Amino acid sequence: MTYCIGLKLSRGLIFMSDTRTNAGLDNVSRFRKLFTWQVPGERALVLMTAGNLATTQSVVSLLEERTKVPSERQPSILELPTMFQIARYVGETLRDVIQSNAATGEKADSAFNSTIILGGQVKGMEPRLFLIYPEGNFIEASDDTPFFQIGETKYGRPILVRAYDKAMSFEDTVKLLLVSFDSTMKANLSVGMPLDLQVVDRDALQLGLSKRIESEDAYYQTIAKGWGDALKKAFDSLPGFSF
Amino acid sequence: MTYCIGLKLSRGLIFMSDTRTNAGLDNVSRFRKLFTWQVPGERALVLMTAGNLATTQSVVSLLEERTKVPSERQPSILELPTMFQIARYVGETLRDVIQSNAATGEKADSAFNSTIILGGQVKGMEPRLFLIYPEGNFIEASDDTPFFQIGETKYGRPILVRAYDKAMSFEDTVKLLLVSFDSTMKANLSVGMPLDLQVVDRDALQLGLSKRIESEDAYYQTIAKGWGDALKKAFDSLPGFSF
Repeated sequence: MTYCIGLKLSRGLIFMSDTRTNAGLDNVSRFRKLFTWQVPGERALVLMTAGNLATTQSVVSLLEERTKVPSERQPSILELPTMFQIARYVGETLRDVIQSNAATGEKADSAFNSTIILGGQVKGMEPRLFLIYPEGNFIEASDDTPFFQIGETKYGRPILVRAYDKAMSFEDTVKLLLVSFDSTMKANLSVGMPLDLQVVDRDALQLGLSKRIESEDAYYQTIAKGWGDALKKAFDSLPGFSF
Repeated sequence: MTYCIGLKLSRGLIFMSDTRTNAGLDNVSRFRKLFTWQVPGERALVLMTAGNLATTQSVVSLLEERTKVPSERQPSILELPTMFQIARYVGETLRDVIQSNAATGEKADSAFNSTIILGGQVKGMEPRLFLIYPEGNFIEASDDTPFFQIGETKYGRPILVRAYDKAMSFEDTVKLLLVSFDSTMKANLSVGMPLDLQVVDRDALQLGLSKRIESEDAYYQTIAKGWGDALKKAFDSLPGFSF
């Protein structure tokens, strides 16, 4: 499994993903699931993947045109004029990869399916955030639904629903993301450290802070330990049921 | 879907279930999923069900021997000498019901499966808590795993994992259960009010407090509103990430 969150804020976009992949319980690996591209001053793109690893790696390779020799590559995602067109192109690529695997008649233990979060900004337009389905279609984040989760989404959802605020700072948002990830990792073995963090500041038109957060990271430790205590205090602050 | 929790404490057992059932999104009903039996001074039993409603209602009817006229009923669950034997009997009944549906060759949109939490105490023995699988086999709660959840278990799990304490009072445990249910209901439409609460005090050998908690219940309102604020405060008490 996997856990990724993409969040839309007034001041930009922020992304976090874990790095654990597993096929069964005893085939556990570490793979990057957060990919970025930029043309400084013109566009910044972030893509996160959940699902079949062969599918998602294939999609990323195709988006980067690795079928061609490096000198001939002109990735469409760096040239298409709008985020909407980029989302459509990523969706088509994803659908084609899934269909080409399925069409061989081979059956995998798990489906070839995969889901993608895509976000970014192209010069002259708003930052946009999309959730792309295995069928290639997609939805866009709005004020009503300002974030997308993929993978093991349930454990970490309650705190997102309660604490998200469009106007919050990136500093507080990283805290929120870490609390959501920590709640998930405490309950589910298939989501694991380290975590990848990527910030896209509004109108910067280049990638912002990019950071891999290891389990020994001091701030992560503060949150992981502090959240348990803070939660306990919050719990104690409510009155008990009276019989 | 459904959400039920059975918890083992030093002072006894406590159970909570929701009452929403749904087949698709537009066929939503209210059904009791928490069932109790007692022979005061001798035994007290609580059973909660998740899964196919026809299966679980069948199981409960068979356990109550409703195939016989009332005067001839001598339910085994009220006569078997140990909780272990009762769990085995419930498991066999569950498996038989599932198999008899499957054996007709009929296919349901959803599986006929169902999972059961069974807890209680028989005179002279310890209170015990079991999780019974559709195959009829079962596991028992221990100090390491002192609670079982069935149904839509993920949203409400982080707070259980963090705040459960074997020595806690029933008053605090009801608070914990309501927080866990509230987190679930805020995120998932298939779990809904009202909630059924059942307490089994250690060595009382009869059912303890039994209560249906409606959405307008004053204490539930206090928790549902207060938990959001308390969580926000807990979140604010942690330091933000520094860029």
